[in-house]
Amino acid sequence: MTMIQNSKKMQGVPEPTLRRMPCYLAFAEGLLRKGQQFVSSTQIANYMNIDPTQVTKDLSYTSIVGKTRVGYEVKAIVDVLSDFLGFSVMDSAFLVGAGSLGSALLHDNGLTHFGLNIVAAFDISPITIGRKINDIEVFHIDQFRDLAQELSVVMGIITVPAENAQTVADLMVAWGIKAIWNFTPARIKVPEDIIVQNTSLYSNLAIIFNKLHTEKN
Amino acid sequence: MTMIQNSKKMQGVPEPTLRRMPCYLAFAEGLLRKGQQFVSSTQIANYMNIDPTQVTKDLSYTSIVGKTRVGYEVKAIVDVLSDFLGFSVMDSAFLVGAGSLGSALLHDNGLTHFGLNIVAAFDISPITIGRKINDIEVFHIDQFRDLAQELSVVMGIITVPAENAQTVADLMVAWGIKAIWNFTPARIKVPEDIIVQNTSLYSNLAIIFNKLHTEKN
Repeated sequence: MTMIQNSKKMQGVPEPTLRRMPCYLAFAEGLLRKGQQFVSSTQIANYMNIDPTQVTKDLSYTSIVGKTRVGYEVKAIVDVLSDFLGFSVMDSAFLVGAGSLGSALLHDNGLTHFGLNIVAAFDISPITIGRKINDIEVFHIDQFRDLAQELSVVMGIITVPAENAQTVADLMVAWGIKAIWNFTPARIKVPEDIIVQNTSLYSNLAIIFNKLHTEKN
Repeated sequence: MTMIQNSKKMQGVPEPTLRRMPCYLAFAEGLLRKGQQFVSSTQIANYMNIDPTQVTKDLSYTSIVGKTRVGYEVKAIVDVLSDFLGFSVMDSAFLVGAGSLGSALLHDNGLTHFGLNIVAAFDISPITIGRKINDIEVFHIDQFRDLAQELSVVMGIITVPAENAQTVADLMVAWGIKAIWNFTPARIKVPEDIIVQNTSLYSNLAIIFNKLHTEKN
């Protein structure tokens, strides 16, 4: 949960760069599995469909250094980027709302691979409470406070119906959560020092449908 | 799959507007459940934390008309926006890659609510093939072609490892898929007339971790 060595460098990394970094990491992990030792910025750029100078600039925010003619060491990209992005340190999260989307996220073991460990889920439905979803227990929301303190959880994931998002966010803030990953289409209001990331799958779906249905005519 | 009545209007809707529309819809659905009949642009704006003029402008792309003093009819917002966003028409999709993230999406019944019906999943792992995940059967990828033609599927969801994303995208295009929802961090290349939407959960996670770990120091 520290990353002290990277914190200075990580400040001021532009968001588009941060969004591309997991792509570089995924590409390098693939090359590593295939046994490739070095990769050029051009090869990465071709894969990403961007300019090689952008790759060089993005990687310059990290301690990865390219070598003339041979390029970047693939293993260095994997190791440094995993660390840099916080994927190699495990953070604990609570998920509130074990409905369809919530259950879906509980089934995604990929989150653990990327450093996010969902340690408990919460709901208000008597049918759901007490169940285990992918080995993660679902508790009554009233137990959030005690468990948050006991398990030193820093992140809260909101997958409740949109109209309950603000109530859940308020409770999370009151109970010491530092970062909120909001999967509802609602926009939540929190104090300035709380981190909020919005990910609405259904907004993305709306964009696809819009393009799909308009291009037909 | 038609939406002919809206196609003219939908052309030229800015992407930020499209992203906000599912939020308006979710808010209106909540109000409808509570029995509220009318809502003002100010009330919607407060919920979204944006300016009321933005709400008015966004809704002007649809056939929703506000009335002086009373505002918008809540039920009209729900009905018109569901139609407008393509959520009330069911599109069929194939999902390729029934690993952890793929299984997670198969568990999300919310997608059906928003007009996306995942009718079959595909994989290459003998352990996964033949299984049913949330009642959706997993087939060998070799059966994609025949099933795509049989079931007139328009959308393909990619949840394979990043290094296989391009191969899967190529196959989808060859087999007549019109829109690709890419959940891998890889950037895929497709012909111009194919719609691509990228949603990388792990890129969003990287942004949270970045803020979380830098703010601590």
